[in-house]
Amino acid sequence: MIYLGIDVGGTDVKIGLLNENAKILAQGKTPTGVGNPYQDIIRNIAEYSKTLLTQAGYTLDDLTAVGVGVPGVADNDSGVVVRCVNMEWWNIPLREELQKHIPRPVTIDNDANLAGLAESICGVSMGTDSSVFITLGTGVGGGLILQGKPWSGQHGEGGEIGHIIMDIDGIPCTCGRKGCLERYCSATALIRIAQEAVIQHHESMLWSVCDNNPEKLNGKNIFACAMKGDATALEVFDRYIHYLCLALSSIICMIDPQVIVIGGGLSKDGPFLLDAINKRIKGYLAFPEVPFADIKIATLGANAGFIGAAMLAKQYTEEPKA
Amino acid sequence: MIYLGIDVGGTDVKIGLLNENAKILAQGKTPTGVGNPYQDIIRNIAEYSKTLLTQAGYTLDDLTAVGVGVPGVADNDSGVVVRCVNMEWWNIPLREELQKHIPRPVTIDNDANLAGLAESICGVSMGTDSSVFITLGTGVGGGLILQGKPWSGQHGEGGEIGHIIMDIDGIPCTCGRKGCLERYCSATALIRIAQEAVIQHHESMLWSVCDNNPEKLNGKNIFACAMKGDATALEVFDRYIHYLCLALSSIICMIDPQVIVIGGGLSKDGPFLLDAINKRIKGYLAFPEVPFADIKIATLGANAGFIGAAMLAKQYTEEPKA
Repeated sequence: MIYLGIDVGGTDVKIGLLNENAKILAQGKTPTGVGNPYQDIIRNIAEYSKTLLTQAGYTLDDLTAVGVGVPGVADNDSGVVVRCVNMEWWNIPLREELQKHIPRPVTIDNDANLAGLAESICGVSMGTDSSVFITLGTGVGGGLILQGKPWSGQHGEGGEIGHIIMDIDGIPCTCGRKGCLERYCSATALIRIAQEAVIQHHESMLWSVCDNNPEKLNGKNIFACAMKGDATALEVFDRYIHYLCLALSSIICMIDPQVIVIGGGLSKDGPFLLDAINKRIKGYLAFPEVPFADIKIATLGANAGFIGAAMLAKQYTEEPKA
Repeated sequence: MIYLGIDVGGTDVKIGLLNENAKILAQGKTPTGVGNPYQDIIRNIAEYSKTLLTQAGYTLDDLTAVGVGVPGVADNDSGVVVRCVNMEWWNIPLREELQKHIPRPVTIDNDANLAGLAESICGVSMGTDSSVFITLGTGVGGGLILQGKPWSGQHGEGGEIGHIIMDIDGIPCTCGRKGCLERYCSATALIRIAQEAVIQHHESMLWSVCDNNPEKLNGKNIFACAMKGDATALEVFDRYIHYLCLALSSIICMIDPQVIVIGGGLSKDGPFLLDAINKRIKGYLAFPEVPFADIKIATLGANAGFIGAAMLAKQYTEEPKA
């Protein structure tokens, strides 16, 4: 049993060939080519996938199924990518188009759902019955894994944690609304908070690490200053953790998973982030006397997307959805 | 197959005897007696249940299983009510105690989860694969029904929609935190908004319906004034619908159910409420081009709790959880 996992991103498409035990047999990546007609993008993905298959010593006949993750809303019932802003894709018949080149069962889902699935199969949340995956990057992505399967919702937009309203009439969001969770909890939000602070605090280490240019602040150098004990950086970090703990408390009272897995760019300084969360989270809970989710840092990194895609394909092939 | 459904409330315990098709064979209620030792409360419930059984012409031998809903956090794995403020119950071994009197399988869950389950089995969301139930009453309760079953979370606190953080450092909540959703979307919130408005607007119909005493405002008379076109009442209602649509948009992007069912006190003026939501909800969505949940008004009323409790007992008896 061989499964192909395809993780479509705005820059690259990451592709992996896995066996039924989630072992990676081959992997690689190819430029996405955003802006090209979707037919061309999908043909390129298919051709690269076939090359990978051949190089690993397999043929199409060995391939059981294909899974594809996209950074947007995917409806697996219809096989259509409903909305994918980074890709400039609206209502793209991904399954149908891909099957022209690779005539195998194709399942599609949101990339964060699939990364969460991968973590629950062979990563940090392995063996858990329920987990919520949350990525702290440019935005905030999310995936719900319930009873071992991704919960993508009825129309493919489940798990979009980044767009929960967290502040009434709050900070404007890229989605056109105000006060979305990702305006407070993304790496972008952390950087914004630091930029606002550094302008008032030229004595801070933040000011020197960014060469007196707040535009050069990023998650990594902000965390580094906080770890070194810089007062302004610690205040910035403290405010960010306040927002993050509020968001985690909402996930806990809504979904109450066994584990919450944190991925994305900011998770690279995992122990520092996790330590701060664990010190404070209990004070943020609606029901502090009730046991709650373990909070952990993702372990599969950039491979999580294609691993999850391949494993979703496996789940669907084993138990086809009606 | 006969199932007993028990809905424990702060004032009354509503009890129903149902067959496997959710048909009510007998029903009744008995005062809860909050403040008495839990053993006494549970013995009273058991005795009343047995009387109901006898009156309906059955014996304990006919009873397949028992389901119990409580207005708090219930852990069905252990059979323990972890937290139930209205009942003054913390870590009460409900299953063990009830089985001393009724030696049958006992399942327990949160009352809003069970009301949502009931609606999905024989109410307004009948036949749907996924639904979110939300009650607009003194607080805001919630229940997630995913793939036909209540999702109570890993520790029994799933679906506590009322305590999602909706406004950072917002209005203080009874849970001790600030900015919880129920401070904006409950009947209590609507009344607060109206009380604030009526003090400034003695010309409003609101001022006369409450006999010049804002304490007498309630969901029913506020809605009545808005339906009659009173300007202040319409402003109050408009602001409330703004908050409610923000909350619904969070449910949609997090869970993306097939249906959202609105129950609780404010749902009694269902068509007026629903019409206002349906006119505005699309403008509140993160992804307005993606299809989203139908929003409906609950139909089972006060019976929903015990119906859901009995049907959960049926689900567990048919497919026991590991």
